[in-house]
Amino acid sequence: MVDVLRATSTIVRALAVGYRRVLCVETIERALALRTSDRVLAGERGGLPPPEFDFGNSPAAIEARGAEELVLATTNGSPTIVRAAAVADTVLIGALINLDAVLERVAEGEGDVLIVCSGTDGRFALEDGYVAGRLSAALAGERSDAALAAECVARAPGSALETLSASADARALDGVGLAADVEWCARESVEDVVPQVETVHQGVATVVRAS
Amino acid sequence: MVDVLRATSTIVRALAVGYRRVLCVETIERALALRTSDRVLAGERGGLPPPEFDFGNSPAAIEARGAEELVLATTNGSPTIVRAAAVADTVLIGALINLDAVLERVAEGEGDVLIVCSGTDGRFALEDGYVAGRLSAALAGERSDAALAAECVARAPGSALETLSASADARALDGVGLAADVEWCARESVEDVVPQVETVHQGVATVVRAS
Repeated sequence: MVDVLRATSTIVRALAVGYRRVLCVETIERALALRTSDRVLAGERGGLPPPEFDFGNSPAAIEARGAEELVLATTNGSPTIVRAAAVADTVLIGALINLDAVLERVAEGEGDVLIVCSGTDGRFALEDGYVAGRLSAALAGERSDAALAAECVARAPGSALETLSASADARALDGVGLAADVEWCARESVEDVVPQVETVHQGVATVVRAS
Repeated sequence: MVDVLRATSTIVRALAVGYRRVLCVETIERALALRTSDRVLAGERGGLPPPEFDFGNSPAAIEARGAEELVLATTNGSPTIVRAAAVADTVLIGALINLDAVLERVAEGEGDVLIVCSGTDGRFALEDGYVAGRLSAALAGERSDAALAAECVARAPGSALETLSASADARALDGVGLAADVEWCARESVEDVVPQVETVHQGVATVVRAS
């Protein structure tokens, strides 16, 4: 499952800096209700940190605060993870910053791979299509038409940063002063963390390190 | 609105060979109920002509039979036209065989252009993405992320026929002995007919020549 700007990048970052679990939820209210002394809250509405949250959804800003669990409530990514986890046996969390690690993990498995692009408010998001295409192009076997199209996006001229920057989400982040997040998320395979959904229960998808 | 394999190609062909109107409907039953002495029926289920129909959905096979109206019932394209016509002011019918003519017509208009890809059973179809990308790349103005991705498909190496042939729909047509339809539909700008929805009433979208 891919939401490059920015939920899946944030989850990779959170596990990389030492959180043991990321609890993905669908609403701000649910996140606030889950707060305990051992949990911190991250997320966004309109790209910005919700009131009373510890962090926004800028992955670079996520840091260890002595808590074991990070609760994540974003507009598109965290609800998509909850829904994907309800129907799939194994859900891995992919971004550009952990691309190679995800591919290694997928290669260890068997069966079909469905790459779920979070998108934005139900619409296709270019940055997710780009990473989906990078993943698809590195896998063996038959491809759906959507995977073939995503591969065309991944193979288009220009760098990852150029493609991500052309997306509507990048423009929206730029509009709220968060253009640096796009650069951060456009770095390739700099983390070896592969997050995986461990359980989904009552609308909370618990994500841990698979590797 | 684009359904290259094959509904929009069939509509262009029907008007080119002399039908005055194409009546797009959502079901086989509706098509059969509309039959009169001045109407012939075309369409498909599973790619093949339904029983009692005059034609399948192979555009090259559509010929004038002295009737003014062709009733078209296909699985994806004709229902999509009916639905698009219910929400848009102007609906033009695009294919690869009338690409330049559609672009000329669009250039005469004003306002936003939404390119609707019919797809297949609710899924993205590569051939529609290709033609959408060809259209988008020739238009001015801001593009959605989906339009940018479609342009990547249109700009990928290889001919139109190669891209269309890589689609799941092309494989399905090949599987029922209709591979020649793909070649026929992959010819570019060989017709100057631009079909346009004139009215939509009780689930019947009436398509005529806009130019």
